[in-house]
Amino acid sequence: MVDILHRVGIESDPGKVYSALTTLDGLTGWWTADSTGTGDEIDGILQFRFAAGGFDMKVRELEPEKGVRWQVVDGPEEWIGTYVDFRLTQKDDYTIVLFRHEGWREPVEFMHHCSTKWGSYLMSMKALVETGKGAAHPNDVRIDDWD
Amino acid sequence: MVDILHRVGIESDPGKVYSALTTLDGLTGWWTADSTGTGDEIDGILQFRFAAGGFDMKVRELEPEKGVRWQVVDGPEEWIGTYVDFRLTQKDDYTIVLFRHEGWREPVEFMHHCSTKWGSYLMSMKALVETGKGAAHPNDVRIDDWD
Repeated sequence: MVDILHRVGIESDPGKVYSALTTLDGLTGWWTADSTGTGDEIDGILQFRFAAGGFDMKVRELEPEKGVRWQVVDGPEEWIGTYVDFRLTQKDDYTIVLFRHEGWREPVEFMHHCSTKWGSYLMSMKALVETGKGAAHPNDVRIDDWD
Repeated sequence: MVDILHRVGIESDPGKVYSALTTLDGLTGWWTADSTGTGDEIDGILQFRFAAGGFDMKVRELEPEKGVRWQVVDGPEEWIGTYVDFRLTQKDDYTIVLFRHEGWREPVEFMHHCSTKWGSYLMSMKALVETGKGAAHPNDVRIDDWD
């Protein structure tokens, strides 16, 4: 089992970052404009759609200002059953986000792509919370030919 | 042992990407302006310096237009003995770069930071090769409080 790891520091309060992870206003601002469903209830389902497909997540853990954990319940075969986890801590003027996309079975080429793309989307979340404007799909940063 | 993985697609020839990885002109353009040493000979040593410290790499593999592999021989304790590996393949109009920073002993918080930062620097390499202008340190994109 292999994981994608990232760390970003957002100059804002943990409450605002938590909101970006649990509300459609937030999720449509940094990940994909086509985000629907329920992100602020345990067992809520979130649907994220992109030009090339999408992911359905079940909300597994919610701890206000501290963390969010999703289980991938539909999407590309490599993603199903994996977990996406965000841990928040306040440190001086920053909210530190420790990100893990856990439980990949093999370090396939698609995992390399998803790692770079997650980093880019986390920078989009940082921009959204700090400035009010992220780079959600379809206005996301293109990293390779699979984008 | 855990690895950092990334994938970027650069709209250029593998020869130009290989050059960005093996010449000081290239390395100072996308990673750090303070890059010195020898990147185009086996066992050459490259010194990369940043505001907060740096890394010395020994060139372990060179395959023109195909790949580069460095061993970290000095730097932060977590990096020493790890390997940084770039594999290049041509695919339509792109050179695909598969990146691995291999052999971390533990998925420490610093590894999360380095993962996001590597993604950002690989996007800088893509910009350098495609447009002639990257975002090398000290003009790099800041991702968190450790930057």
